[in-house]
Amino acid sequence: MNQQSYSSKLLENAVNEFSKLPGVGKKTALRMSLFLLKQDAESVRQFGESLIKLRNEVVYCKHCMNLSDAEECEICSNPRRDHSLICVVESVRDVMSVENTMQYQGVYHVLGGVISPMDGVGPSDLTVETLENRVREGNVSEIILALSTTMEGDTTNFYIYRRLKDFPVKISTLARGVSIGDELEYADQITLGRSIINRQPFEQFFGK
Amino acid sequence: MNQQSYSSKLLENAVNEFSKLPGVGKKTALRMSLFLLKQDAESVRQFGESLIKLRNEVVYCKHCMNLSDAEECEICSNPRRDHSLICVVESVRDVMSVENTMQYQGVYHVLGGVISPMDGVGPSDLTVETLENRVREGNVSEIILALSTTMEGDTTNFYIYRRLKDFPVKISTLARGVSIGDELEYADQITLGRSIINRQPFEQFFGK
Repeated sequence: MNQQSYSSKLLENAVNEFSKLPGVGKKTALRMSLFLLKQDAESVRQFGESLIKLRNEVVYCKHCMNLSDAEECEICSNPRRDHSLICVVESVRDVMSVENTMQYQGVYHVLGGVISPMDGVGPSDLTVETLENRVREGNVSEIILALSTTMEGDTTNFYIYRRLKDFPVKISTLARGVSIGDELEYADQITLGRSIINRQPFEQFFGK
Repeated sequence: MNQQSYSSKLLENAVNEFSKLPGVGKKTALRMSLFLLKQDAESVRQFGESLIKLRNEVVYCKHCMNLSDAEECEICSNPRRDHSLICVVESVRDVMSVENTMQYQGVYHVLGGVISPMDGVGPSDLTVETLENRVREGNVSEIILALSTTMEGDTTNFYIYRRLKDFPVKISTLARGVSIGDELEYADQITLGRSIINRQPFEQFFGK
């Protein structure tokens, strides 16, 4: 299917637009376009407009850089949240992952990536400066570094640690160890080794 | 990921809209939405509007029921096409498949499906009436039935054959046989059996 011949320019346009989306090829794009043709005009209008609206109206929260409908996101403006606890994550997606655990009551800071010289991402491309300002303003007791456990994530952890270590703030990272539900024989050596070194008192196992 | 918490209502809307598309779940929808956020506003506007335009402006060709930008589709309005040859297909997608072979110079007739009592599709749901009218108007020398080689396709073939057999028009179907590039040992028995019964003169092998 190199040169597809569409009977309609409008269809061709829609297929081309759909196939710009990640993971969508021409065949899937055609399937999506034909699907929309079968929907009623009102719901297709809603679909199209919700995308345009998303792009035009969504902003980044001025405190945590999370996606938000207002200047201050729902999490930062929630008075029941613990504003002295900041969880540092790579992306908006990671905020959702942590939120879904329902175990965290603090606020966030979205870095916008991790330091990765290979991809041309340096510290100045991230929102570390803003994080430092938040810490400098006071009222922050703990920073939880929740980045990927990759080399890039660890580099970024270390960089942030160096910039914040002189402030009167506790810096912690996520616990690393064997996943819950894993069989030991399938756990990788490095994780297993680390989880022996960082073994926990058995009482802690039941939660604090 | 049962109850996803989005920090933005706009994002949530876009994700919900994307996940209505066939084959798109919440995770893919989120990925698509975040992708759009990284594009410039103008191209997102184009994307959204191309979908709305598609739904509002595309029509079905008054002759062949193919998708079209105008009352008469590009194929039907092309004077270099052989208008006495009508290829009957199930869907718009099949028109594209036949067009892509670049072997066909006639026109089409899109049925809109095949007869399938299981799915509640009867002859009256298809455009057989219109096809009969096209044949009745004359100027048609041959009808090529290019439907799926399934039971539903064969039923539909037979139904159309019965309705058209009294008109002075040749009715043919696609050749069935071993696929080109297939090894005989993997060809299914029915196809192989048919291809022996309907064996062709060797000269025909080189094209007519």
